[in-house]
Amino acid sequence: MKQNIYDNPIFHQSYINLREKGKGLNDVLEIPAFRSLLPDLHDKKVLDLGCGFGESCKWYVVNGAKCVVGVDISDKMITKAKQEFSDNRIEYVNQSIEDIELKPNNFDLVLSSLAFHYVVNFAKLVKRIYACVRPGGTLIFSQEHPVATAKKVSDGWVKDQNGKKVHWILDDYADEGIREQRWFIDGVIKYHRTLSTIMNTLIQTGFQIESVLEPTATVESEEKNESLKEERRRPPFLIVKAQKP
Amino acid sequence: MKQNIYDNPIFHQSYINLREKGKGLNDVLEIPAFRSLLPDLHDKKVLDLGCGFGESCKWYVVNGAKCVVGVDISDKMITKAKQEFSDNRIEYVNQSIEDIELKPNNFDLVLSSLAFHYVVNFAKLVKRIYACVRPGGTLIFSQEHPVATAKKVSDGWVKDQNGKKVHWILDDYADEGIREQRWFIDGVIKYHRTLSTIMNTLIQTGFQIESVLEPTATVESEEKNESLKEERRRPPFLIVKAQKP
Repeated sequence: MKQNIYDNPIFHQSYINLREKGKGLNDVLEIPAFRSLLPDLHDKKVLDLGCGFGESCKWYVVNGAKCVVGVDISDKMITKAKQEFSDNRIEYVNQSIEDIELKPNNFDLVLSSLAFHYVVNFAKLVKRIYACVRPGGTLIFSQEHPVATAKKVSDGWVKDQNGKKVHWILDDYADEGIREQRWFIDGVIKYHRTLSTIMNTLIQTGFQIESVLEPTATVESEEKNESLKEERRRPPFLIVKAQKP
Repeated sequence: MKQNIYDNPIFHQSYINLREKGKGLNDVLEIPAFRSLLPDLHDKKVLDLGCGFGESCKWYVVNGAKCVVGVDISDKMITKAKQEFSDNRIEYVNQSIEDIELKPNNFDLVLSSLAFHYVVNFAKLVKRIYACVRPGGTLIFSQEHPVATAKKVSDGWVKDQNGKKVHWILDDYADEGIREQRWFIDGVIKYHRTLSTIMNTLIQTGFQIESVLEPTATVESEEKNESLKEERRRPPFLIVKAQKP
């Protein structure tokens, strides 16, 4: 059974609150950087792995995509997507991204935002993605950065008595595998993989690396929200763009 | 004036002591990983940037390279190289790797071990390397890992009262530039660049990334020397292999 925290009622509501307020790091760091890597979407067939409540699927068709298949394991998320971001060019599929059957050489673009750190078998997923992208097509994905997932018992920042962040804790980096964290609820399972594993898995599968991002906020965002400067101190996200030759 | 710490008498002697005892992390982590990426050296024209005292240049010709040009800014290092690792297939050049004139499309292999973090202008260096590698040729380089160079005032490990390592300190990651450290002597200048800058500079210059390593010691080395296990806790080195198409 694949993990499905997004259907946990407490997690689900907390996550929706975070995203609807536009306060998550997704909104100010990850989404702008991710979208900066997108090619012209016009006439593209897009697969969105871990589409959540479908906000990005809608954005892709509004910005020119011919069609989008959005896949998510969470029934609650897919239900919300169908209610709020439906479109006749979007098909929402309630399935694990690790299990869904995909037609070979079918998509121009495979996109995945902050889902791959939930996947047990990264090599298998990358192989299946490679098979379903057409030659010349592109994979763009973001995930939590390996320096953010590394530590087994995650403490994150060392803070002083006043709650000020002193530095980020890095540990257990080379020991890949399960990381259990608290994020709204206890027992959220993520998988830590090193940067070299991520890169070499893509390359050995046949992808060519086109870009690697470790996004920081824009100066404007930092001016509006001082605390975003803290995100420069360690990279929270890794975003990779790769092409199937 | 390029930094030339390896000609500082105290630094030079301390470094030689470390390397001659085979006790540096170079010997147990970096060199085995670096050499694992080498193609068949037979008949290859090799450029070794930051060759130090020439041990690797000698190793490359002994293992089949047709000829090696070894470049190092340190006069003391080049003198030692000529004394101890001379060979009629090796030419040692006492010059900065940032300044040396290089013939276009001339080398099959450009190798550089733990020198690039001393270079001010990485993009310029990569462009010059790209020009001097023949099409189909390869660049392999190692450097200190970005998580090791990141913090401006480098504390390295947090240690407890007994000197036991508690965790690695990560900070200042996105703020690239000069890092002044103590390594045998005060005032050793290194340059911190993020992983994404390193990757994107290579890709935008035209290189295709072939492999990325964050080496750990072998199980045998770790059994001989328990303290090597600590190196798994954060990656000390980054090694990249890239091809000019």
